[in-house]
Amino acid sequence: MTKDEMMALVDRSLFATLGYTDEKGRPNMRRVFCVWHKGLGRHLISTNTGSSHVRSLMRNDKACLYFSDDVSFEGLCLYGRAAARFEREYRELLWNEGDEKYYPKGVEDEDYCVLEFTADSGRYYRYDGKGDLTAADIAAFDTGREYENGYERSRPGARAGAPANEDARAPAAQ
Amino acid sequence: MTKDEMMALVDRSLFATLGYTDEKGRPNMRRVFCVWHKGLGRHLISTNTGSSHVRSLMRNDKACLYFSDDVSFEGLCLYGRAAARFEREYRELLWNEGDEKYYPKGVEDEDYCVLEFTADSGRYYRYDGKGDLTAADIAAFDTGREYENGYERSRPGARAGAPANEDARAPAAQ
Repeated sequence: MTKDEMMALVDRSLFATLGYTDEKGRPNMRRVFCVWHKGLGRHLISTNTGSSHVRSLMRNDKACLYFSDDVSFEGLCLYGRAAARFEREYRELLWNEGDEKYYPKGVEDEDYCVLEFTADSGRYYRYDGKGDLTAADIAAFDTGREYENGYERSRPGARAGAPANEDARAPAAQ
Repeated sequence: MTKDEMMALVDRSLFATLGYTDEKGRPNMRRVFCVWHKGLGRHLISTNTGSSHVRSLMRNDKACLYFSDDVSFEGLCLYGRAAARFEREYRELLWNEGDEKYYPKGVEDEDYCVLEFTADSGRYYRYDGKGDLTAADIAAFDTGREYENGYERSRPGARAGAPANEDARAPAAQ
């Protein structure tokens, strides 16, 4: 699986699965809406500050983020750390019209935050083989990239079929 | 979300995500083909004995198993433990015609094993609310149940659309 194929998998995914260790010391995971990516190494997830996975990650930031496609039998598990970002630049980047429904105080609502996942390695799985992604691989691939909405980028002609913002936000709570 | 709705989500899922702590102490996960269930509490996954997630689980058996539907916005995360079963009853239950392609020595091939995940609690997520599932809830719901292929049970008229065995097995390696 080439790095471009991994990036395509990430870009066309609306959701990823975030794995972490919870406050009881258990492996835990959450299905998250995740479309903002800076290459393979950085990913943003907007979420509620009070969510249990945010609380857990503030105590232990080790995490993994898994993108997969059950139809093409491709999977990419990224390993690294997740941090809650409260800076305005992150809040504004992920804010969508209508989000006041979830965060009545707007972009500065204290219950609104953005999780940033940073990968230091990864492993890919596909019917034709599996292998590792190193920190150097990620750094080389990501050089010069900025945060982009990969889902929009991967479906330029498909906006009508993309979920409305309300729908897209709901599963952040899954 | 009622327990019957959770069971329906589990039954119609071909795949689940298995979360565990790997040998490096990292949260890790694997997408697994998982259709054999004994109620909400027990789930079987056939896999290669030599897989890294099996090795990790033999050292630390704490695990979680997540079933989700991105269309209906439902998710169920089960917490518990996973154990590798080598007994013939498990091997025979999950063995399918043609599996010799993966395990040339047949049902007794030492690289073939079955992971059994046993849940002691859970948490469900849906657009209309989330909540906990206790050990007592699981025990009460599962009383008298036996292992069944939930996917076949949930799609009695849809066998033509179900994946061929080869396809269904491939993603076990994702």
